[in-house]
Amino acid sequence: MRAQADDRHPDLRAALENLLAAGGKRIRPRLVLLMGNMLGADPERLITLAAAIEMLHTATLVHDDLIDGSLLRRGNETLNANWPPAATVLTGDFVFARAAKLAAQTGSLTVMEEFAETLAIMVNGELTQMFDARGLANRGNYYERIYAKTGSLFELSTHGAAIISPVDAKIVANARNFGRELGTAFQIVDDILDFTGDQAAVGKPVGSDLLQGLITLPALYYIEDNPKDENVQSLLNGHYHNEKEIALLVEAIRQSDAIQRSLEEAKDYARRALLSLNGHPPSEERDALENLAEYITNRNV
Amino acid sequence: MRAQADDRHPDLRAALENLLAAGGKRIRPRLVLLMGNMLGADPERLITLAAAIEMLHTATLVHDDLIDGSLLRRGNETLNANWPPAATVLTGDFVFARAAKLAAQTGSLTVMEEFAETLAIMVNGELTQMFDARGLANRGNYYERIYAKTGSLFELSTHGAAIISPVDAKIVANARNFGRELGTAFQIVDDILDFTGDQAAVGKPVGSDLLQGLITLPALYYIEDNPKDENVQSLLNGHYHNEKEIALLVEAIRQSDAIQRSLEEAKDYARRALLSLNGHPPSEERDALENLAEYITNRNV
Repeated sequence: MRAQADDRHPDLRAALENLLAAGGKRIRPRLVLLMGNMLGADPERLITLAAAIEMLHTATLVHDDLIDGSLLRRGNETLNANWPPAATVLTGDFVFARAAKLAAQTGSLTVMEEFAETLAIMVNGELTQMFDARGLANRGNYYERIYAKTGSLFELSTHGAAIISPVDAKIVANARNFGRELGTAFQIVDDILDFTGDQAAVGKPVGSDLLQGLITLPALYYIEDNPKDENVQSLLNGHYHNEKEIALLVEAIRQSDAIQRSLEEAKDYARRALLSLNGHPPSEERDALENLAEYITNRNV
Repeated sequence: MRAQADDRHPDLRAALENLLAAGGKRIRPRLVLLMGNMLGADPERLITLAAAIEMLHTATLVHDDLIDGSLLRRGNETLNANWPPAATVLTGDFVFARAAKLAAQTGSLTVMEEFAETLAIMVNGELTQMFDARGLANRGNYYERIYAKTGSLFELSTHGAAIISPVDAKIVANARNFGRELGTAFQIVDDILDFTGDQAAVGKPVGSDLLQGLITLPALYYIEDNPKDENVQSLLNGHYHNEKEIALLVEAIRQSDAIQRSLEEAKDYARRALLSLNGHPPSEERDALENLAEYITNRNV
């Protein structure tokens, strides 16, 4: 990944270095490698795919942080905290370009098409969220949003790994399902952590989604159970900028069983993901994928 | 191209519709089609490549207009004139994504890699210009900049068309040279028009490059001939924000033979481009490519 800015402008090299040094959990490339190793993919192609997907993820974060005006990510300053917006837009574009080149270097046109399709889904999801999602309490819309935001790229990770593996169409379809379901579980847990997480660890204020008018699964459960709650009514009428009302609502949701029910739902997704692995003989990779699913539904909830 | 936003957010569909309706000269897709038809490419793949390249071009314009704060392009309002920056960033990303998918649908991994490489070159060029190019009077730097800005995408147009054609490596290399040299000629003429063009037709003030500190070929010739001119000295010392001095310099360049010498240089590039077509039997497409080269070096100079 680091070599992708060699021969480029020194500031761009430095920016990429910082972006990659900031780390993160690297869950997506790990999924690529585990799934592909389990299915017998060529290691070189697999590493190329893993790098392509992590860089696509990085590029979307660069543009998202710029759009949201976020100054911190993973405890580090974001690029836009120090750079003018113009340079930040272009750096994101550059990282997209390198991700696309790596995707092409996997040697699979199908991977390349899925890669481009995933980017389109993610961007369309961001735009839809920006224009339409505020104050909207609708499960269908919620699942579409988290698929666009997270499920689609998890899906690409395991689907792409299977595409470049010597396996039949049914196994490819199962690998794809695995990623999509696990990504959904991952995002639901992220949405729970927005209510229950330690502010310092999550890196943003508790209830920040709701303060932006974004209604996630814990809020959906709470709203379904308490439709007449006056703070719920206020939220649904678009008054999500009222910090005092939202703080009361966040506290009520934290204390309610909406958290536990959301977590159960995340675990259901993770279980369904693991069902897609049935039929594979025991292996180190299969164990690791099961452990990853376990980790995803248990991180600091 | 229009179908690329079907099933997407209505505002995104409308934005794409506007971007495409705004038109432009469509020189890049025309180059793809003419070169590919001359070399016997499959028409379907060729049209897909032409659309991919025009959409890549469109995506870069969306981000460039945002970065430059331009409110008009081709006499129409830009996207950022009406949309928040965040939506404009994402729309550019979406158009990139669709361009990448179309490039993958050409069915050539080589085309796909070249496509991604070209995007990286263009973005790196924009960043280099943003950070380093102001007030820099250096021919090498100028040619690097115009290759990144224009030459690379013209090159991709004719190179890509040849890659998907049933021709040998030598013809592919010649087609590539044709696009690169013609793109260089095109950009030099654009840079001349910045001095000589009718403000209404060009859509920006005369001398706008120089007002931003960007030293293009006509200015380079003038500086070489008049190193001691006090306005030249001022420019080279970074005082390009002094509108009065720059206006005097622009007028001096317009009156000098720097314009004619730049145009001769553009014509040399166009001639070298046409030499790359030697060996091809006469055809309607070859005639059309020659006419296009003629048009490029003669538009309103």
